[in-house]
Amino acid sequence: MTAHRTRSADRTDAIMRATIEVAQEIGYAKLSIEAVAARAGVGKHTIYRRWPSKGMLFHDSLLSTLEPAADLPETDDVKADLRQRLHATVDLMAGEPWGALFQALAGEIQHDPVVAASLNERFFGPLEARSVARIERAKATGQIAPDFDSSLAQAMLAGPVYYRFLITQEPVTYEFVDGLVEALFAGMGPRP
Amino acid sequence: MTAHRTRSADRTDAIMRATIEVAQEIGYAKLSIEAVAARAGVGKHTIYRRWPSKGMLFHDSLLSTLEPAADLPETDDVKADLRQRLHATVDLMAGEPWGALFQALAGEIQHDPVVAASLNERFFGPLEARSVARIERAKATGQIAPDFDSSLAQAMLAGPVYYRFLITQEPVTYEFVDGLVEALFAGMGPRP
Repeated sequence: MTAHRTRSADRTDAIMRATIEVAQEIGYAKLSIEAVAARAGVGKHTIYRRWPSKGMLFHDSLLSTLEPAADLPETDDVKADLRQRLHATVDLMAGEPWGALFQALAGEIQHDPVVAASLNERFFGPLEARSVARIERAKATGQIAPDFDSSLAQAMLAGPVYYRFLITQEPVTYEFVDGLVEALFAGMGPRP
Repeated sequence: MTAHRTRSADRTDAIMRATIEVAQEIGYAKLSIEAVAARAGVGKHTIYRRWPSKGMLFHDSLLSTLEPAADLPETDDVKADLRQRLHATVDLMAGEPWGALFQALAGEIQHDPVVAASLNERFFGPLEARSVARIERAKATGQIAPDFDSSLAQAMLAGPVYYRFLITQEPVTYEFVDGLVEALFAGMGPRP
């Protein structure tokens, strides 16, 4: 029983690795279940038994490699902590091959609500929750104005980063996100 | 010559209208050049002579319906003007059928750099330039801190809106963007 489960888990890993390899080589748009099956040395049915679509297969494969970023250390300096979180996002977006694959996944969720819901549940939701919790803690220590909506603050940090990544497609850099953190703290109203 | 050009322009319009109609009916993912050709009553070659890909055909067709938003009136109140611009974006995202089609186009530009470049040149670039110009004018009249980067300010307004639209896929509302404008003016640093 244990041996059987291990073989099954090994096969799942092999399929997910094959998915990432093939996607890196030919791009997500051309990725096919057939090509993944051939690379992993399994039948197509084996893949379809576990994943209902190419989108979900790709999503699971990519997330299986992305999840470690969970526990960034925290300091007493909220700006430093927020910068560090955003730097991790920059590393993901600018890194090879993850940047291009992550962008393809962001494209896929515009067409597939099932993948969109799962990506938010497994990836964006937990990231947001941690940022919101850090912002709440900074309100308690007086580093952030207590009347500032924490969820909106999170969207005002993540939003411009994803706007660059997905819309203008300009490079997302540490300098950009550092400037963003400073700007959000300062606000654009006239100085008193 | 004039009559010939008019017929050609009519045919271009008919193809772009057919593209939008078919995309509304079956979604962008399933849209095919064949289906558009059949709906418009032209041959596939006629379409391929003008558009190199399904993505560019869809992009041109959608932009041909979106461009009017160019000249929003301006007041002396920069917050009101920025809110009005964002409301126009909300109307686009929430409106039927444009919201779903616009989202599909945002998905397409994750795979097609030619469409991405053209969409930025024709749509996002001019919108950004107008917002930046409005922000610059507000700096001159003392309504915005002169040391706040205008381009970053624009990204901090547009970014959270597109983050909602494309990533979390929560509804984008007037309330959300009104709160965003207030928050960007206030900043999240402790109040002096």
